Amino acid sequence: MSYRAPLSDFGFLLSHVVGFDRVQSTELFSEATEDMTTAILVEAGRLCEDVLAPVDRAGDTVPARLDGGQVHSSPGFAEAYRAIAKGGWICVAAPPAHGGMGLPLTLQTAINEMMSAACLSLQLNPMLTQGQIEALEAHASEEIKALYLPKLISGEWTGTMNLTESGAGSDVGALVTRAEPNEDGTYAIIGQKIYITWGDAEFVDNVCHLVLARLPDSPPGTKGISLFLVPRHLPDATGVPCAVNSLRVVSLEHKLGLHGSPTCVMEYDRATGWLIGDENGGMAAMFTMMNNARLGVGCQGIGIAEAATQKAVAFALERKQGRVGGTGTIIEHPDVRRMVATMKAETFAARAIALANAVAIDMARATGEAEWAARAALLTPISKAHGTDIGHEVAQIGIQVHGGMGYIEETGAAQLARDVRVTQIYEGTNGIQAMDLTGRKMADGGRAALALLDEVTAQAESARVSLPAMSGRVADAARAVRDLTEWLVQQELRDRFAGCTAYLRALARVLGAHFHLAAAIAEGGTGPRTRLAAFFVARLLPEHGALIAQVKAGADGLFDVTVEDLETT
Amino acid sequence: MSYRAPLSDFGFLLSHVVGFDRVQSTELFSEATEDMTTAILVEAGRLCEDVLAPVDRAGDTVPARLDGGQVHSSPGFAEAYRAIAKGGWICVAAPPAHGGMGLPLTLQTAINEMMSAACLSLQLNPMLTQGQIEALEAHASEEIKALYLPKLISGEWTGTMNLTESGAGSDVGALVTRAEPNEDGTYAIIGQKIYITWGDAEFVDNVCHLVLARLPDSPPGTKGISLFLVPRHLPDATGVPCAVNSLRVVSLEHKLGLHGSPTCVMEYDRATGWLIGDENGGMAAMFTMMNNARLGVGCQGIGIAEAATQKAVAFALERKQGRVGGTGTIIEHPDVRRMVATMKAETFAARAIALANAVAIDMARATGEAEWAARAALLTPISKAHGTDIGHEVAQIGIQVHGGMGYIEETGAAQLARDVRVTQIYEGTNGIQAMDLTGRKMADGGRAALALLDEVTAQAESARVSLPAMSGRVADAARAVRDLTEWLVQQELRDRFAGCTAYLRALARVLGAHFHLAAAIAEGGTGPRTRLAAFFVARLLPEHGALIAQVKAGADGLFDVTVEDLETT
Repeated sequence: MSYRAPLSDFGFLLSHVVGFDRVQSTELFSEATEDMTTAILVEAGRLCEDVLAPVDRAGDTVPARLDGGQVHSSPGFAEAYRAIAKGGWICVAAPPAHGGMGLPLTLQTAINEMMSAACLSLQLNPMLTQGQIEALEAHASEEIKALYLPKLISGEWTGTMNLTESGAGSDVGALVTRAEPNEDGTYAIIGQKIYITWGDAEFVDNVCHLVLARLPDSPPGTKGISLFLVPRHLPDATGVPCAVNSLRVVSLEHKLGLHGSPTCVMEYDRATGWLIGDENGGMAAMFTMMNNARLGVGCQGIGIAEAATQKAVAFALERKQGRVGGTGTIIEHPDVRRMVATMKAETFAARAIALANAVAIDMARATGEAEWAARAALLTPISKAHGTDIGHEVAQIGIQVHGGMGYIEETGAAQLARDVRVTQIYEGTNGIQAMDLTGRKMADGGRAALALLDEVTAQAESARVSLPAMSGRVADAARAVRDLTEWLVQQELRDRFAGCTAYLRALARVLGAHFHLAAAIAEGGTGPRTRLAAFFVARLLPEHGALIAQVKAGADGLFDVTVEDLETT
Repeated sequence: MSYRAPLSDFGFLLSHVVGFDRVQSTELFSEATEDMTTAILVEAGRLCEDVLAPVDRAGDTVPARLDGGQVHSSPGFAEAYRAIAKGGWICVAAPPAHGGMGLPLTLQTAINEMMSAACLSLQLNPMLTQGQIEALEAHASEEIKALYLPKLISGEWTGTMNLTESGAGSDVGALVTRAEPNEDGTYAIIGQKIYITWGDAEFVDNVCHLVLARLPDSPPGTKGISLFLVPRHLPDATGVPCAVNSLRVVSLEHKLGLHGSPTCVMEYDRATGWLIGDENGGMAAMFTMMNNARLGVGCQGIGIAEAATQKAVAFALERKQGRVGGTGTIIEHPDVRRMVATMKAETFAARAIALANAVAIDMARATGEAEWAARAALLTPISKAHGTDIGHEVAQIGIQVHGGMGYIEETGAAQLARDVRVTQIYEGTNGIQAMDLTGRKMADGGRAALALLDEVTAQAESARVSLPAMSGRVADAARAVRDLTEWLVQQELRDRFAGCTAYLRALARVLGAHFHLAAAIAEGGTGPRTRLAAFFVARLLPEHGALIAQVKAGADGLFDVTVEDLETT
């Protein structure tokens, strides 16, 4: 069973569910016509099916290794990477001024999902480069842009992001890496960074690190952090990588999954770097980049969910156990059918949320309207946390569908679960996403959330006649989560955070139902998407009730359980 | 952080929650006094802390391997196994007539949980032997019993169970291994079996296989299966292993976890075996053994949940990230507190269910009362499926608490999740447990379930004054699941099975709340267990509402989603 690009789902979602036509009708994205969109997705899908998916297993069984200070990637990765670069797929949303195609992020999002599904270990590499392109585009000098962006966009060079240190993970403000000014305007970077994804690759001419570090006498915490560009090889004025910079990969981590993606400990020993953006403005610059990266990570989860679903459905249609009718395979067992239908319905919902998020980002960029920006900001932590939670849940269901074979590594089902697991942790843990949603993203008094829930209600009301059962349930759930939102914004942060994970999921449940309903409406209330929507609304949406109870429990009962209670065995 | 045996929890549960005093007051188990019970648990706990836990990591990093046809176990496993055997811990519930201690299964259950928590890979070995002891005790001739049981109980020999074949997993009736009668009354066993846990071990004198096979001209399906005892070495009349039997380990599986536990493909090439029980009575014999083995597997999940909880709490109390009060560590973050409190509360609930299950089994044995047997039969699939689901869920939360470090294998958090994952699959997948619960175990019209729910209601009503909020919620939930049960038994099997997994979890939620409430009542409504109970009832119990909706959805909406719908991408 090999991966097939879910082109019909993308096509349907873009045309009928998430309002991509609005993006297409803006001036900025007028080139992203229907034909162009289809052609792009078909081509990218072909690359994922034919080039990336075939190397995915080798990425697991023959991990990237460090030898002589250089990373050697898994078999086939170098060739697959070059195919991505050659096809122009590193970053289709990159600015045309520097060689990019300037396509909507919505298309980039679909492509990222497909690449993640096909080979997550390798996809991480261009995804990090995408973030770097975005950061440089927004914050770098024209000189740096002119020198670096064309190389990054073409894939000749790759980009990394260096945030974490051993004492500074989620608490970025605790980092201690230093940057000392050199006489020529550059900086000497001194420190050690951990968890650096694709910190090196033998198949590119240069690896460019964006490093968070502290200038001398900078204020403590996040206000004293600056961003520096630190390439492995120092380019000359024409962009030819010359002198080796004084940085090195110390070691690679031994991880649960993503063995094909080298996770490096990096050491900077007075390495030469260039300041990007303002002094002490590193956090702001980083957030520019991280926002879209969060959506990208959400798509990694969704890609794995899709791959796991396809694998499980294929297995369930092949495996014969017990006397059943229909196909004569285990897919006729009700509990197996429940599992694969859940996988399918969850994947669809998470994908729709992510694409709607991308549409909001594109619309904000194209129109400059604050409402779109607020919508995008609201959806980003949901896309990330929910997309990756679903990715892992669906991959685990996939193992279960395979029975005993799911536990055997050769089957490949376990690899998907191992690979996707970290997406719930990196780029801000899912707990941090939920805090972001209920804290910062509710600083508007919940306006963006309430506006979105009103749209959910309006659509549900519009389908009262055509799809009465489904729309009634969606409307009820939207009302309940709307009430919850109004309650939530009245609470102290501590109480919001006590229920933040449950709140995020409750909202995601309602949004998932909303997009399923949209699909059913577009289908005229009959057809495969209507059947899947009915399944989602009947079986998965009701979870919101339990989640609401959790949110409302607040912090009191939580902190009643003392540290001592927890320590006693 | 090393494992600590949860002795205070066991002590409290046995004394105040699951009614172990009733077992102690039977004649059969009169020797299991309070002092005896404490001494047994303390000693077993010490073995787990000092001997088993220290070898657990090596079981992961240096897998068992096959060399020269023999399995060589992970470093330290041979010594640890000998310590288990020497201490008399292989099977404390084994019959005194053959050298066992004849202790209640309830104590065996607690010991199994601790051994699983300390080193699941190795614990599998005595757990399989326990099953074999039970099967031989119930079905073997006196001659076989006299020859084999003392060796198995002392741990000089180990036992395995051979069910699965490549075309016969959950569908045992499809197996094709043959047994041909020899002239001397023995049988020649011919066939290949897969997934044979601890199919060989270099540290024992003999490995005894219980093999399901077909006699010539036996009826098809499960009615034509017989059980055979097939030792690696044929013992002489005095029990000395002599001639090598014609069976061999063909290969070991490469698994997601449990690397220290060799999972063998076994080949029987006219190996000599002895019929156990009646011709074509293999399934009945197997079910005797599997019932208690299912409880044992549930305890494996609970053990891992306990180990993961301890590890996560220790990490959360050590790790400093962000500005927080109290301990100054991440345990003060509401979402982290939520995670570790959930781990603790889930582990307690699953443990209470398993111990109550064991008490019912002991009571059935000691009193012969049908009500206890029905209670035991009802609780067994719940202990197995819910215990292992919680084991995996809690281990996954443990990874999340560790953040980025949770994804690094050296931390050990990921190993717990990988190791426990198969417990949801083997000994009957959790889906099969749920089918058993809603099918066979409801063949009594739901009597056993309704009787249990009535006890839940009665206890909740009794606490209306002392613990009004908590008891009210438990009573409401019990009523809702009682109504659901009455509805369920009216449905066709296909509809029951469509909601079986949700039903099992809904019932487990109510039972978990019931035992938490019992703990709070026993504590007089104030103290650590009351606080944890309040947390469980407020946050985790409400899930039952969503589960009820899933159960009630039945099969229609499920099979509306067609195979074609699922295949389309």
